[in-house]
Amino acid sequence: MTLELSAAGPRTPRITTRGETVPTVPPASTAADAVDVTALLERGRTLATPVLRAAINRLAPPMDTVAAYHFGWIDAEGNPAEGDGGKAVRPALAVMSAEAAGAAPEVGVPGAVAVELVHNFSLLHDDLMDGDEQRRHRDTVWKVHGPAQAILVGDALFALANELLLELGTVEAGRATRRLTTATRALIDGQAQDISYEHRDRVSVEECLEMEGNKTGALLACACSIGAVLGGADDVTADTLEKYGYHLGLAFQAVDDLLGIWGDPVATGKQTWSDLRQRKKSLPVVAALAAGGPASDRLGELLAEDAKSSDFENFSEEEFAVRAALIEEAGGREWTAQEARRQHTIAIEALDTILMPDHVRAQFVELADFVVVRKR
Amino acid sequence: MTLELSAAGPRTPRITTRGETVPTVPPASTAADAVDVTALLERGRTLATPVLRAAINRLAPPMDTVAAYHFGWIDAEGNPAEGDGGKAVRPALAVMSAEAAGAAPEVGVPGAVAVELVHNFSLLHDDLMDGDEQRRHRDTVWKVHGPAQAILVGDALFALANELLLELGTVEAGRATRRLTTATRALIDGQAQDISYEHRDRVSVEECLEMEGNKTGALLACACSIGAVLGGADDVTADTLEKYGYHLGLAFQAVDDLLGIWGDPVATGKQTWSDLRQRKKSLPVVAALAAGGPASDRLGELLAEDAKSSDFENFSEEEFAVRAALIEEAGGREWTAQEARRQHTIAIEALDTILMPDHVRAQFVELADFVVVRKR
Repeated sequence: MTLELSAAGPRTPRITTRGETVPTVPPASTAADAVDVTALLERGRTLATPVLRAAINRLAPPMDTVAAYHFGWIDAEGNPAEGDGGKAVRPALAVMSAEAAGAAPEVGVPGAVAVELVHNFSLLHDDLMDGDEQRRHRDTVWKVHGPAQAILVGDALFALANELLLELGTVEAGRATRRLTTATRALIDGQAQDISYEHRDRVSVEECLEMEGNKTGALLACACSIGAVLGGADDVTADTLEKYGYHLGLAFQAVDDLLGIWGDPVATGKQTWSDLRQRKKSLPVVAALAAGGPASDRLGELLAEDAKSSDFENFSEEEFAVRAALIEEAGGREWTAQEARRQHTIAIEALDTILMPDHVRAQFVELADFVVVRKR
Repeated sequence: MTLELSAAGPRTPRITTRGETVPTVPPASTAADAVDVTALLERGRTLATPVLRAAINRLAPPMDTVAAYHFGWIDAEGNPAEGDGGKAVRPALAVMSAEAAGAAPEVGVPGAVAVELVHNFSLLHDDLMDGDEQRRHRDTVWKVHGPAQAILVGDALFALANELLLELGTVEAGRATRRLTTATRALIDGQAQDISYEHRDRVSVEECLEMEGNKTGALLACACSIGAVLGGADDVTADTLEKYGYHLGLAFQAVDDLLGIWGDPVATGKQTWSDLRQRKKSLPVVAALAAGGPASDRLGELLAEDAKSSDFENFSEEEFAVRAALIEEAGGREWTAQEARRQHTIAIEALDTILMPDHVRAQFVELADFVVVRKR
């Protein structure tokens, strides 16, 4: 998947989904506003990591060690490691969010860390529930330290998130915690939907979008408002920043769904055709199934057979490639790319309805562009 | 285990641990202050249950159904049931706690429900981590609905607890949530200790008490302060009520540990010698092992053999009876009964340091008496 500047303007990157030949062009806004996304992500990580590490140090043994393994700070034997801590989009957004309310970036840091803690709580529990053995190129916590530690440390991270915010002792912290709680409830709803969809033959595009909004949109929304709330923003500003974040999350997830099928394994750290191997009913799949026509029908037949197949585990590369080609032929790939662009546009337009410093607005725009062009 | 009024006065029930022949005598305070513990528990349950049910109804399917099963409102097939909802000590305490601050009992209700939600979150997760198949005479959630639902619904109850409090939108609610979060962190620490102790040959009495303080004391402490905090009590009052609750929790747990070995299976709903079958290093066991002497040494040898035995699952009633007799001979049963009394006394004395309406003080005293005389 690659991205070009669309005719609609530099703010709306056009995702092309046919082939990988068109090189990725950095969005024009980088040059125009001199916003460096790498630096934004790095700033969020630099501000949040020491506070996150100090928070993890509060955990009683062996939970501190298990959490440190999960975050990639140590390996399975307990030796220091330089793990892949993820893209750190959420901390960057939380810090920018404080600036959107006219506060110093540092004001957003407890929010950034709380959101990261909730995100990782959900990863620990979801990996166990889903039986996923790998995350960020490493064995998952339940695989290394056992299911009980995955449950327990997940619980501890969730509690720690509330603790970090509430110990600020301010009215704003109470409001921030309430928003984080709402997002966490949505996250849990999304996981419940995800699990229940696994047992169903068909999932509609609307159901898939609702699930992805809960699993990805809600917490990204909270990341975008939490710094502002801690910085004293009113509810209209916070709600609008959440709208930006929610749709950014849906764009993010649509891209994730494309990468889950057509992503480069070297970049994603996942197997080829990863989501197909896991029988995930992601956006390209549900859109292809909903499209109708010969390719859509054939895909539906194949997936129905696969669901009953006892040999699915041993499928060859070619068998997955056939399914991926049918999804593409039925229009699932292009629809999902368009959906990413559509959600990106809604996110950017939300920003126009509130006041914020120009350089912060430029940062939000740039981060949204980054989310839809990323390759991992 | 039975209870008599001790010479020290009607406020300090004496627990006798030899034989079951002495009938349980209701503490004198029942007559003196006309406090009816059954009515207190019933009031807490009556006030909290509709709010708890409404909260559970907020959960997306199938989590609402799974939670309703856990609370005993429906059976495994989804039919209405009149389950054993537990003793409901915590809701009763939370409601009394509001009255201690001079507020109406109703003010404590969101706190009562939040504490119940956190308590049940921990039961759902602990039962799964510990592999426990039965709770309150019924199959546990992970056994009926699978591990994923036990994790997910536990998470949802935890989030719901914070939601219920924070949506009150008051400064007091923020303070209450902070105390609940602290208690939840302790609860998780306690479960981590419990799990790690299972893998050790020896656990000291101090370690066991610390673990039980975390697992049982901290949340009971929070139940005793949360209504007062919601009713506007200052931190000294809240801290003192927590001190009462913490030591009440330790008394409660000491009695639980006695019932876990010598309790009547019909009353407890557990197997005979339940904690011995589970190799639990509960207070009577660790106290007996720490006591020294021939019975203590023999017990240590037997338990070390049991830990390695492949035939432990098939042990007869008599084999467990031998171990129980050694624990008793080494003084573990008597020590634990004394510990329950000691913690009961500390709890009651804490109450004397703060002002509260006389009838509420009488209720707290009466509930403490109940906790140490209960048979289930």
